[in-house]
Amino acid sequence: MKISIERGPLSRAIGQAQSVVERRNTIPILANVLIEAEGDAVSFRATDLDIEVVDRVPAQVDQPGAVTVSAVLLHEIVRKLPEGALVQLSDDPTSGRLNVRAGRSSFQLATLPKEDFPVMASAEYGSNFTAPARDLRRLFDKSKFAISTEETRYYLNGVYLHVATGEDGPALRCVATDGHRLARVDAPLPEGAADMPGVIVPRKTVGELRKLLEDDEAEIAVSVSETKLRFATAEITLTSKVIDGTFPDYSRVIPTANTRRLEVDAAEFARAVDRVATVSSERSRAVKLVLEDDRLVLSVTAPDSGTAEEELAVAYADERLEIGFNAKYLLEIAGQVDRENAVFLFNAPGDPTLMREGGDPSAIYVVMPMRV
Amino acid sequence: MKISIERGPLSRAIGQAQSVVERRNTIPILANVLIEAEGDAVSFRATDLDIEVVDRVPAQVDQPGAVTVSAVLLHEIVRKLPEGALVQLSDDPTSGRLNVRAGRSSFQLATLPKEDFPVMASAEYGSNFTAPARDLRRLFDKSKFAISTEETRYYLNGVYLHVATGEDGPALRCVATDGHRLARVDAPLPEGAADMPGVIVPRKTVGELRKLLEDDEAEIAVSVSETKLRFATAEITLTSKVIDGTFPDYSRVIPTANTRRLEVDAAEFARAVDRVATVSSERSRAVKLVLEDDRLVLSVTAPDSGTAEEELAVAYADERLEIGFNAKYLLEIAGQVDRENAVFLFNAPGDPTLMREGGDPSAIYVVMPMRV
Repeated sequence: MKISIERGPLSRAIGQAQSVVERRNTIPILANVLIEAEGDAVSFRATDLDIEVVDRVPAQVDQPGAVTVSAVLLHEIVRKLPEGALVQLSDDPTSGRLNVRAGRSSFQLATLPKEDFPVMASAEYGSNFTAPARDLRRLFDKSKFAISTEETRYYLNGVYLHVATGEDGPALRCVATDGHRLARVDAPLPEGAADMPGVIVPRKTVGELRKLLEDDEAEIAVSVSETKLRFATAEITLTSKVIDGTFPDYSRVIPTANTRRLEVDAAEFARAVDRVATVSSERSRAVKLVLEDDRLVLSVTAPDSGTAEEELAVAYADERLEIGFNAKYLLEIAGQVDRENAVFLFNAPGDPTLMREGGDPSAIYVVMPMRV
Repeated sequence: MKISIERGPLSRAIGQAQSVVERRNTIPILANVLIEAEGDAVSFRATDLDIEVVDRVPAQVDQPGAVTVSAVLLHEIVRKLPEGALVQLSDDPTSGRLNVRAGRSSFQLATLPKEDFPVMASAEYGSNFTAPARDLRRLFDKSKFAISTEETRYYLNGVYLHVATGEDGPALRCVATDGHRLARVDAPLPEGAADMPGVIVPRKTVGELRKLLEDDEAEIAVSVSETKLRFATAEITLTSKVIDGTFPDYSRVIPTANTRRLEVDAAEFARAVDRVATVSSERSRAVKLVLEDDRLVLSVTAPDSGTAEEELAVAYADERLEIGFNAKYLLEIAGQVDRENAVFLFNAPGDPTLMREGGDPSAIYVVMPMRV
């Protein structure tokens, strides 16, 4: 193999590769990226056996071939080369090393046999469709904070991507929950997606996928089977196993009869919650909300450090209500609101509360109260 | 006590206080800041028993008095208040709490008796002088990287501040070393400082002191005794114990007969060292330098990951030399050079090497080689 490639695209491709490989793993080849050169492009493939990312970069291929080398080490080297550098990669069959040259720098890196690199088996995808990057970004960005980190509830360690009937008709929907809070976000159902099986997208996949969705105008090719899913742009293909489990029936958790309505400026609300939570102890982060006559009083009482109270002018015309929440959960859902006011719908102090942005039903959040 | 104070200056004073208090300590009052209001100013005092910082802030004092409260908690609260807020602090004698009010926020914070707060005993300072903040900043900034972190060599855990004869006459000098490298930085001797005893300024004091030296035009009042030293601006007084030990005779470490002279662009040199060091293992960070005929070749050989080599055009007219250094040490001393080229003076491959900036002898660095 012998290729010349620009530092910029090379750095981006290796950056994505080194973020997929696991830093600590017992199988040495999984720390490597598989570099394959053919035609006028080079592909960089990395995997942790659950996710595989392949990034294609245009390059001058003087001699086709393939080699595997440490993704982290190659990324560090490329990152430190001067901007605009032209990088030459060539394998030395006698030493078995990869030569990396740029300007007056040269490196000989240890390699591992390309035959040992675990290429993910291709799958039969029953469902194939195209979705705007913007829609997919919103689906995952607004739901991922609610993913559970409890490993015993593995079926909650991801975002449930499925087809549902939203308030405005058929929708591509993402749901995540950890039992304390839940996020449900809808996007228009793309053509050809109606038969898609529901799949649980692992947390790490959501993180890696995010990098494919930066371009507002991009269209993403999505393929889904019962066990795998694939997202592809012109340059990058991300394939991931899905979580083998059943996502719980979340619809029963979403309250439909909550009638006490609070409307509040989300940013002002978040700052006030953050301030009063300062005195709360690290273990219990309970904030009390008292609502009455267009007034919201937030308060925290912590035996060790003291008490805090703050008043906000809000829109609330219903019966007086006292209810408690974990400050962290309130801050997270308030952080999802970016255009309009936050609208909270309460029932009794022990019942789940619903939050949405203004009158928009395409993203709703449920949060369980706590006793204060 | 009852005072009104602006958020900006309050935040700065409490910020400095909370950085002095130790996060983990077994004496609860050491987590607190002592707030004393009198006349038209409030002072904020914090200590870890080795360093004491007192910050005076102008305020409207409606009722003089004193109180102690958690420095970290008060800092968090003030930080989260809106910019430009006017903050009211008042103690409630019945509950024993400190009321903090700003706009519609109010906090009641736990306090501890002000009588229990350990105020550092005042000392007799035999030496008192004034030094430009700019000079002090340079002295400490350019030497502190060489402070040892080995606790058993406690007398190296700081910067040795003393009076010496520099190349341009009497000097105020800072020296730090960890046995592998050494920094020696001189400033013009301030009037009245000639009789100052040499003192070892602890690492933490150097860090806290740095915040007093931001203002280029400021003059700092310095007082030194055998056991303590004090730095004061109009607003802030920092008092610190010095390390009770004898700083070793560093002058014997500084080579005087090194004749092989390398001149190199410091930034270019640092980038090249950083690049070749990428392949080095985490434990051994040895970089080999080969010098001959205005050429410097940097190289690293790591059995596991590979090799790296880079060539630089330099000024070197002496006999061929091969010498090895820890990459970290080379990067740190190269980072001290900001105006001119770095000048290295070598002797044999096993001997200490000297580095300075161009022809400037007011800051010199010594680094021990390592076998490569």
